[in-house]
Amino acid sequence: MRRFSLNQATTKYWPMEDLVAGCVDAGVTGVGLWREETAAYGLEKTAALVRDAGLAVTSLCRGGFFNSPDWYDENRRAIDEAATLGAPALVLVSGGLPQGSRDIDGARAQVGAAIGELVPHALSAGVQLAIEPLHPMFASDRCVVASLGQALDLAAPYPSEAVGVVVDTYHVWWDDQVWTQIERAGREKRIACFQVADWITPLPEGVLLGRGLPGAGSVELRRFREAVDATGFEGPVEVEVFHADVWARPGREVLDAALAGYREHVA
Amino acid sequence: MRRFSLNQATTKYWPMEDLVAGCVDAGVTGVGLWREETAAYGLEKTAALVRDAGLAVTSLCRGGFFNSPDWYDENRRAIDEAATLGAPALVLVSGGLPQGSRDIDGARAQVGAAIGELVPHALSAGVQLAIEPLHPMFASDRCVVASLGQALDLAAPYPSEAVGVVVDTYHVWWDDQVWTQIERAGREKRIACFQVADWITPLPEGVLLGRGLPGAGSVELRRFREAVDATGFEGPVEVEVFHADVWARPGREVLDAALAGYREHVA
Repeated sequence: MRRFSLNQATTKYWPMEDLVAGCVDAGVTGVGLWREETAAYGLEKTAALVRDAGLAVTSLCRGGFFNSPDWYDENRRAIDEAATLGAPALVLVSGGLPQGSRDIDGARAQVGAAIGELVPHALSAGVQLAIEPLHPMFASDRCVVASLGQALDLAAPYPSEAVGVVVDTYHVWWDDQVWTQIERAGREKRIACFQVADWITPLPEGVLLGRGLPGAGSVELRRFREAVDATGFEGPVEVEVFHADVWARPGREVLDAALAGYREHVA
Repeated sequence: MRRFSLNQATTKYWPMEDLVAGCVDAGVTGVGLWREETAAYGLEKTAALVRDAGLAVTSLCRGGFFNSPDWYDENRRAIDEAATLGAPALVLVSGGLPQGSRDIDGARAQVGAAIGELVPHALSAGVQLAIEPLHPMFASDRCVVASLGQALDLAAPYPSEAVGVVVDTYHVWWDDQVWTQIERAGREKRIACFQVADWITPLPEGVLLGRGLPGAGSVELRRFREAVDATGFEGPVEVEVFHADVWARPGREVLDAALAGYREHVA
């Protein structure tokens, strides 16, 4: 329970004040927030709300999308927002291939270079940039970084206090190299966020909203939690599930289901 | 042109006789066949039809599904069918996790052991078993073998004349390790089939019928063909596309589109 964090995307339509009150009521001590939602409620107002409630902001989603023209300014703003919210990490989803391009190596190199340009600002803000490898089914249109090994390779040139990685079970569960790469991530002090969602099928059209609550699918969630912990990681365990059916349920009911799944399959 | 082969699944509803006549008319010299279609037309009849037309059968799809109870007998039958058709390789799709299981390591080990049991029959039939890694989005429900590296690891204990791998661009294009693994596959004499399809988005519900004809998507197809060739591979290049919109078009039109895409983006 101490380490459980509710990523806001799991309860997408739960209003900010209800989310915070619901977490406090349930004994949850951490939340992962999203930029769109914090902007809609008000950044400073969100920071005050969660602080006054005694909640830790475990991460901010998300920066990245380095193929968009305003990536530099936009990511600097995102870093500042993370600092304002007291989030230790800003999750980066790299973006897909540039329009009309097939050059995935080039796109990945551009991601690495872009992150490098953000490092000084991240260091001065005290926010760790967290490169998130997404499932390979998103490689063309959402995130060219498709494995934990790649994410670590991209992080490697930069100090670990500035650049880390996200280990999200949904995205990496299929990878037989992931156990070695989790060990490496721990050794290199790169584990910025640990996120949990389950893999369920059939995938919906567009494949974005197909995640399962912990225990609903085929991922060895506890094995992942133990592997991450074995590296010395003691940070939060964020449950982050995108699914239309989950979003249609009342926030508190989803939180309770996430907590139950966490206790039975993760903790 | 010499190396182009039309995988039958690309023109799923083209009747066998029309498919064969259409290939001959277009100057195509090879076809990849499917068990369901050859059984429907008649196995011996199909073998005679393609032989009399002067077409090579470049592969038979498919065996595998080692989590089904009758996998042993079914795969022996599939090997015999490949031999009857003169197909040098039987494509194996491993199957997903057993019902209710989360043990992906165990499932992969079972695949390796099952293949081992088929090796003597494959050798005596002169048919190479071709382990196909599928895209990781199929890892739970269709194929626990999710990367070329894994497929090669599973093949490693067995002689290369009995067990090889499929390099299918659709399934492996996202993998930054794939170039190293293609080199390895060539060195280990494991490239049994080279198949080409393009990656397009958005993915449809269930993600099975989302492939693009060559040139329609984001894969560096020519880079793959050159990488495979650089290992000394001189075999056929099968175009294999599953897409509802492609299936809805007349077979000959699809074949011509596949040939045009092959010339422009692959050859």
